[in-house]
Amino acid sequence: MPTTSSDVARLAGVSQPTVSRALRGDRRITPATAQRVKRAAAQLGYVPSNVARSLATHSTKRIAVVTAELTNPFYPELIAPLHDLLERAGFGTILVTHRGNAEVDYAPLFDGSVDGVVLTAGSIGSDLPARLESRGIPVVLANRSVGALINTPIVDEVVPDNAAGARAVADLLVRSGHRRIGCISGPETTSTAREREAAYRGALAEHGVALPSSLTVRGAFAHETGHSGFATLMKADEPPTAIFCVNDVIAIGALNSASGLSIAVPDDVSLVGFDNIPAAAWELTELTTVDVDLSLMAAQATELLLSRIAEPSRAALRRTIPTRLVLRSTHRPLPLDESASPSK
Amino acid sequence: MPTTSSDVARLAGVSQPTVSRALRGDRRITPATAQRVKRAAAQLGYVPSNVARSLATHSTKRIAVVTAELTNPFYPELIAPLHDLLERAGFGTILVTHRGNAEVDYAPLFDGSVDGVVLTAGSIGSDLPARLESRGIPVVLANRSVGALINTPIVDEVVPDNAAGARAVADLLVRSGHRRIGCISGPETTSTAREREAAYRGALAEHGVALPSSLTVRGAFAHETGHSGFATLMKADEPPTAIFCVNDVIAIGALNSASGLSIAVPDDVSLVGFDNIPAAAWELTELTTVDVDLSLMAAQATELLLSRIAEPSRAALRRTIPTRLVLRSTHRPLPLDESASPSK
Repeated sequence: MPTTSSDVARLAGVSQPTVSRALRGDRRITPATAQRVKRAAAQLGYVPSNVARSLATHSTKRIAVVTAELTNPFYPELIAPLHDLLERAGFGTILVTHRGNAEVDYAPLFDGSVDGVVLTAGSIGSDLPARLESRGIPVVLANRSVGALINTPIVDEVVPDNAAGARAVADLLVRSGHRRIGCISGPETTSTAREREAAYRGALAEHGVALPSSLTVRGAFAHETGHSGFATLMKADEPPTAIFCVNDVIAIGALNSASGLSIAVPDDVSLVGFDNIPAAAWELTELTTVDVDLSLMAAQATELLLSRIAEPSRAALRRTIPTRLVLRSTHRPLPLDESASPSK
Repeated sequence: MPTTSSDVARLAGVSQPTVSRALRGDRRITPATAQRVKRAAAQLGYVPSNVARSLATHSTKRIAVVTAELTNPFYPELIAPLHDLLERAGFGTILVTHRGNAEVDYAPLFDGSVDGVVLTAGSIGSDLPARLESRGIPVVLANRSVGALINTPIVDEVVPDNAAGARAVADLLVRSGHRRIGCISGPETTSTAREREAAYRGALAEHGVALPSSLTVRGAFAHETGHSGFATLMKADEPPTAIFCVNDVIAIGALNSASGLSIAVPDDVSLVGFDNIPAAAWELTELTTVDVDLSLMAAQATELLLSRIAEPSRAALRRTIPTRLVLRSTHRPLPLDESASPSK
C-alpha cells in the first residue's frame, strides 16, 4: 500500500491540506510546521503525486527537449548542458526524439505535461513553434531556425553563426590554392545545412570559384551521407581537391570512406567539417572543423526560455552564437604545380 | 484562450464527461458519438490534459528510461529500439539521465508521472529497483544487473551473456599465441565490467595465463579511460602484446592513444572491445569486438515490462542475450618467435 498524504498528516499532527502546502513550499506554512511535515514524509517514504500537484499549481516543473536521433552524437552534446542548466533552474527534462521518418507524437508538448519546450531539430516551415506559441506554451529553438527565409524570428531562437563559419572554411580552402572544391551537405529542409551551404557557395563565388552541382551532394545528417557522398565525388571526371562537409558526422563518414578507398587525407583531398564534436578531435580523425560553443548555446536557450515563462508577451528574440575555425590535420595547401593547373 | 472540453462538448452536442470518456476510448460511448466528439476536438484543435486524464485513469501512458551519460554512444543505441518498441505498445518515453557524479533526481519515477521504469545504468547494490518494486512501480533492468552476486534476480532483468563473450576474447588471444595480456576495465560497481573482467581472467587462468595487476587498469566507461589506460599499460617494463577493453568506448580511446603514440595496432599490440557499437565498424577503427544484439535486448526488456504491468505479482525473471565474437582488424596472431619467448 503506497503511503498517502493522510498518513503523513497523521504522523505530523497536521491536516492533509497543510501537508500538501508544506511540501510544495507554500509560504503560508511556518518553517517549523514545514519541517515537521517534511520529516514525517521522509520517515514514511512519501513522495507527493506530481499529477495532483500539477493540477493544484498549474506547473509541472518539467521542460520537453525535442531532438533528432540521439544516435547522431551532436544532440547528446547539446542536450547534456541543457539538462544541467534546466535542472539548476529547478526543471526536470523530458526528451522527445524523432526516430527515422516516423511521425513524432507531439501530444506531450500540448497536454499539460510540461511548462515549456526546447526544439533542437525543427525543419524550415515547420508550424510546430507557432502552434506552441498560439497555445501560450513557452518555446525556444536551439541550433536550428524554422524561419530561415524571414528576418524576424517567429519565436525565440539561438542559432550558430553558420554563415561566418562556412565563409571561414571557403576562405581557408581558396587561400590554400584549391579551385576544384566540393560540398557534402545536409537536408535542404534544415536551416543549418541551407545557411552553411549558401554562405560557402557565396564566399567561393566572391573568390571567383564556382561550386558546380556535379561537386555537390546532399543527404541526411548521417555518417552514411558522408561515406557514400565522398565516394560519389571522388568518382567524378575531375574530382575535387577539397571538400566541405556541412557537419562533422558527415565529415567523419567521408574520412572513413577515404580510408576504405585508400585515398589519403589531406594529401589527395582536404576535408573540413562543422560543429567540432568530440570525435573530431580524436587522433584517428584530427578533423579540421568549425567550433560551435554548445554550452553557450544551451545557456542562452535556457535563459530565453525562463524569461519567456516569466514574461509570455515579450517580442521574440534571436541570439547568434559565434563560430571559430579549428585547424587540425585534414586540410593542407595544394603543392604549387597542382594549384596552378586547372586540372590534375 | 486554450480550447476546453466544454467547447468540444458544445460543438459535438454532448455532455462534458462524454467528451472525456470518448477521447480516452471508454467503451460505454457508442462509436458514432465517439467519432462526433473526435471530429469536434480536431476542428477546435483540442488536446485533452494529460494531467487530468492521469488522475481519472491512473495511467500516464509514459515509461521512464534511466540511462547513464547519453554522450556515451552505447546508450543511444539501446534507447533507440526501446523508444520504438514502447511507442508501438502505446507508451511515450521520458529519459532520465545521469550526468557526471551529480545526484540524480529520481522523483519523476515515484511521483505518478510514469507507468513503469526501464533502468539501463544501475550499479551493483543499488536499492532503486527494490524501492520501485516495493511501491508497486513496474521496473525492468536492461544491460546491467544490480544483484550480480546473487543468483536470483530481485526484479526482471535482461543482460548480455558477458561471461561467454569475455571467454571468447580470452580464447582468441591465447589461441593467437599471446601470453602477456592486459585488460582495461570499467567501474567495479557495474555488473558489465565486473562480469567481463572476471570471466576473462578465469578463462586466461584455465589456459595457464595470469592477468597480473600491473597489466590491469580500471576507470569510467569513457574514451579517456582507454586513452590514458593504454598509455599506462604500454609504459610497463614488459608491455602486453594484447589488451582486452571491456567496452568499445574504452577500446576506441585505446586505439586513438595508440595512433598518438605511433604504436601500431595490431602489429605492435592487439586490441579487442565489447558491445559492437557502430563506430567499431568504421574503416578508421575496424575493431575486433563482441557483438551484443541491443534490438533483442530492447525487445525482451519491453516484453518483460509489459507483462509486469499486466501481472504485478509474477516472480522476477532473468533473460540472457547471447553474444558473438566479431573478427575485424585489431587482433592478429603473434609471429612464432615472439609467441614462443616469454618476453619481448
